[in-house]
Amino acid sequence: QVFRRVAQQAEQREDLIAGLDEILEELTVLPPGKWDPSARIPPPKCLPAPHKRISMHLREWKSPCNKNAVAAEDRSGAGHPHFSDELERTGRLFGGLLRDIRRKAPWYWSDFSDALHIQCLSAVLYIYLATVTNAITFGGMLGDATDNMQGVLESFLGTAFAGSIFCLFAGQPLTILSSTGPMLVFERLLFSCSEDYNLDYLEFRLWIGLWVAFFGLVLVATEASYLVQYFTRFTEEGFCALISLIFIYDSMKKMLSLADTYPINWQYRSEDVTLYNCICNLSSPGEPGLLTWSPASVPPWPHLPWMSLQGPEAVTLARLSRTQCLDQGGHLLGASCHYVPDVTLMSFLLFGGTFLCSTILKRFKTSRYFPTMFRKLVSDFSIILAILIFCAIDAVLGLETPKLLVPSELKPTNPARGWIISPFGANPWWVCMLSVVPAVLVTILIFMDQQITAVILNRREYKLQKGAGFHLDLFCVSLLMIVTSVTGLPWYVSATVISLAHMESLKKESTTSAPGEQPKFLGIREQRLTGLVVFILTGVSVFMAPILKYIPMPVLYGVFLHMGVAALNSIQFTERVQLLLMPAKHQPDLIYLRHVPLRRVHLFTFIQVMCLAMLWVLKSTAAAIIFPLMV
Amino acid sequence: QVFRRVAQQAEQREDLIAGLDEILEELTVLPPGKWDPSARIPPPKCLPAPHKRISMHLREWKSPCNKNAVAAEDRSGAGHPHFSDELERTGRLFGGLLRDIRRKAPWYWSDFSDALHIQCLSAVLYIYLATVTNAITFGGMLGDATDNMQGVLESFLGTAFAGSIFCLFAGQPLTILSSTGPMLVFERLLFSCSEDYNLDYLEFRLWIGLWVAFFGLVLVATEASYLVQYFTRFTEEGFCALISLIFIYDSMKKMLSLADTYPINWQYRSEDVTLYNCICNLSSPGEPGLLTWSPASVPPWPHLPWMSLQGPEAVTLARLSRTQCLDQGGHLLGASCHYVPDVTLMSFLLFGGTFLCSTILKRFKTSRYFPTMFRKLVSDFSIILAILIFCAIDAVLGLETPKLLVPSELKPTNPARGWIISPFGANPWWVCMLSVVPAVLVTILIFMDQQITAVILNRREYKLQKGAGFHLDLFCVSLLMIVTSVTGLPWYVSATVISLAHMESLKKESTTSAPGEQPKFLGIREQRLTGLVVFILTGVSVFMAPILKYIPMPVLYGVFLHMGVAALNSIQFTERVQLLLMPAKHQPDLIYLRHVPLRRVHLFTFIQVMCLAMLWVLKSTAAAIIFPLMV
Repeated sequence: QVFRRVAQQAEQREDLIAGLDEILEELTVLPPGKWDPSARIPPPKCLPAPHKRISMHLREWKSPCNKNAVAAEDRSGAGHPHFSDELERTGRLFGGLLRDIRRKAPWYWSDFSDALHIQCLSAVLYIYLATVTNAITFGGMLGDATDNMQGVLESFLGTAFAGSIFCLFAGQPLTILSSTGPMLVFERLLFSCSEDYNLDYLEFRLWIGLWVAFFGLVLVATEASYLVQYFTRFTEEGFCALISLIFIYDSMKKMLSLADTYPINWQYRSEDVTLYNCICNLSSPGEPGLLTWSPASVPPWPHLPWMSLQGPEAVTLARLSRTQCLDQGGHLLGASCHYVPDVTLMSFLLFGGTFLCSTILKRFKTSRYFPTMFRKLVSDFSIILAILIFCAIDAVLGLETPKLLVPSELKPTNPARGWIISPFGANPWWVCMLSVVPAVLVTILIFMDQQITAVILNRREYKLQKGAGFHLDLFCVSLLMIVTSVTGLPWYVSATVISLAHMESLKKESTTSAPGEQPKFLGIREQRLTGLVVFILTGVSVFMAPILKYIPMPVLYGVFLHMGVAALNSIQFTERVQLLLMPAKHQPDLIYLRHVPLRRVHLFTFIQVMCLAMLWVLKSTAAAIIFPLMV
Repeated sequence: QVFRRVAQQAEQREDLIAGLDEILEELTVLPPGKWDPSARIPPPKCLPAPHKRISMHLREWKSPCNKNAVAAEDRSGAGHPHFSDELERTGRLFGGLLRDIRRKAPWYWSDFSDALHIQCLSAVLYIYLATVTNAITFGGMLGDATDNMQGVLESFLGTAFAGSIFCLFAGQPLTILSSTGPMLVFERLLFSCSEDYNLDYLEFRLWIGLWVAFFGLVLVATEASYLVQYFTRFTEEGFCALISLIFIYDSMKKMLSLADTYPINWQYRSEDVTLYNCICNLSSPGEPGLLTWSPASVPPWPHLPWMSLQGPEAVTLARLSRTQCLDQGGHLLGASCHYVPDVTLMSFLLFGGTFLCSTILKRFKTSRYFPTMFRKLVSDFSIILAILIFCAIDAVLGLETPKLLVPSELKPTNPARGWIISPFGANPWWVCMLSVVPAVLVTILIFMDQQITAVILNRREYKLQKGAGFHLDLFCVSLLMIVTSVTGLPWYVSATVISLAHMESLKKESTTSAPGEQPKFLGIREQRLTGLVVFILTGVSVFMAPILKYIPMPVLYGVFLHMGVAALNSIQFTERVQLLLMPAKHQPDLIYLRHVPLRRVHLFTFIQVMCLAMLWVLKSTAAAIIFPLMV
């Protein structure tokens, strides 16, 4: 009897749920047609859960609060998924730019006052460390590619200058500028080309930069940015997934390259401890502090690598340190000279530890323990806490792990160049005309790289209140091109993953959320201050070298891994890839699965994965330079 | 209007939930009064969730399927929480034992046929590795404590013999026998006492063993095991938590002790690579293969540790391996002699990796990906998979990590002893009478250790169908005492954590569970075969040394950590400790929180924590021997 009653109740409840279902479906289509963000109609509020238990049920339908719901709105709306008037053409020269400035100007004061929140401190530290690491990495690679014409110091100054100007004046100040992969490939090609044809690299580059800036301004004047409204979810997600995967791949690759820098003697046997020596061998005998010894007087030991001396030659052994030995023209001789114990494995422990720690602390927000305020604080500062914890562990143990070494002198890395590049003199006059050809390529590169990132950052699901500024962003990037070309600093465009991490660390969320339940996303702290402070700090890093040298690189690579994974998790594509592995009955109740047959969802995901694989292959070849075009 | 409708619906649903609540509360008190497992009334079935969404709601009330519900039943029932007639006194000599045999006999055939399931293979491998590791660890410690009178080989043979006999004839064949901490403390005291008074340790021990067996049989005859029904949740959980914490603590301690065995040179600087040498110093010069060198002819290098030679003495350097050098009477000289690179850090990577991997694979069962069958298989074999993965990684890298080394020769570890201990001859005649005094202590030790573990293993929440056998268990342990005393093997009682891991790995669960939802627990595969095979394998491990030597110890310590954490998570005490850190509004809807005020729950937990802390302190001192008494 009792069982029957339960069954009845359950049936009744199912009816109710079906009813609720219909109502909520109505709600999600409620905002009719196009949205007008400038009028700022509030998005439909999430229903207040009338009862804690019901709230578990309702979670799935709290549509306007999650990305899937937004996707559903996108489809139901008649206009473009992302933007309304921001990308409408005015038909006048610089009309879009003027409209952008007019839209953003009223927010300018609040762009600074909105930054007064403890969360911004965490964001500044986090993004600062990411930017500095990036500047060092790209600076090092650029230095290799251009014979130090652009080195680490130029990278620091360029990042600081371009970034802070962009944060002060751009349309979307949450963007973080950085060197990007395609740009690096281009610089490498340009440098080797200059070498081959005996051209002055920096002067050639200056003219290309000026032409690119000119083309960029033409694109702004003709409001070419309106084209970005034809970017679909397919393109955006493909680009974002690729950049995130490259981030993850690079952080792993850098960790593995540590094993080359600090090789481990995998064949080490403690029994043979007496055979693993390293001795300085100097050719000129008889110096003070040296031990002379003739191998002819003792029998040969063929099984000992460093002792396998043939013939009557005398070997002079010096008890000098590595540098002293090499300075005196000696060379190191022995089985243990090439190995560095413990450093690589310690680096992997720090790398894994930082990644796990930051991920766990980040998720601490939705745990059941401790009051909400405390959890939110820990979660906001998760990355900084993880970095501090593992820097402390590294410092206590005292092993010689690779550290963050920033340049500490303010002079060009290559003494052959100055701070201002002269436009004429070194190259024939026609080079400035010839520069048009590569400039077209760079313009396409920059336009695509910049605008896809801008589209991703200005997505509707981030609920930005202050609007985007595509024309203004491109205008800033073009003007910065002129300055960085003249001063011979690297060129900068928006960096997808770091900018996403920046936005992620500035999320406003409801504080009253129940654990387990996703907290309500309220928007982003849109302001110019965090970015500005990050780039000012980057600029003065040159003076902070004594502090920064305590931060081990593996810890920062761990942070990069975290950023890549977080960016990958922020797109619907990842969710759909997961669906591929999920039996239908276990799938979450996603809105798009209600509207689109599962087979078509899978087909869409599958094509995306294929395109991504093609892009990955392309990126690995020399054709990487045309990769934004392929996107 | 729409919002109003939603609100109405929600109210209606709340009423429904309240109704459902009442019904389910009725259900949980349905089994009236005492339970009679021998009649095998099925426990109230979990309600079939009429709809997937409702099932999310109902989860909390699926009372009879989880431990909290059982706890509620316990309180509502009039009888004892654990047992019915199993512990009733018959009033006749050996009445309880006979009743145990009568109860278990009809199941004997099914005790073997029930083992035909793939899950049992995983359980055998998992518990086998745990048992072997335990035998080696305790064997090593016993060897240290008793001057190898009982060494690793004795530990293997004893474990194999006692374990397999117990699994064949005991009342609860899921129990895994092992040496325990208090027993180790006792043996250490006994050995040093024998040394002090010039007594023969093994003969003394034989008499104690015989007395203990006699007392044990008296306890069986008088049905003393009925006393265990006075063990409450408080005692059980305290004991289980303590043993689990000791397990976790020990695995950590063993890992840290690796850093002593394989010291890391934290001050290593790759710049000074030429200064880290290790050279064999032989006193007698002029032997072949030696390099003679007089420090008087070269200036002293006071900053180089291995070169700081004073006076005119000549040092002879030999290019010999460590063992050769020490065999020839030389000693090692140099800064790098004491250090072993990479091994410790690699061990920590393997340790952490095995723990994380086994934990993640174990949880894979409740993930959304892949079909249920596959997930269940991966989860069942999680530990074995984790061990194999990390053994493979270790083997590929080829570093000299500490491996599982089992003895490979069948002869007593100490050549001074034989396989049979003679009861007379070495000690004065009155020693056999004197042995009564320590025997009483050991009897109490064994009785408490054995019975608390038995109580924990036979808990109602494990839904054992074949009943317990407290008297029969104690009878087996007592008889085994005689054999192990006569042959001079270690004494064995039930090991809580390994037995719990054994049961955990034999859990039967519903296969149709939705992800996220806890699968329905259906019972344990109660049989004698897995235990039997584990102990037979332990016995033949002596011949499997060539295979077992590929398993690194850190991997096994990682498994131990996993076992300790799993055992700790299996008790309600852990849940209540977590409640202490949880704000009231985030607490899960546990049945006991509905019946008992939160302050009283916290008070109960707090007193338990205090008692646990006291026990921990006690355990760390020499008083560890009376620790089961304190429990």
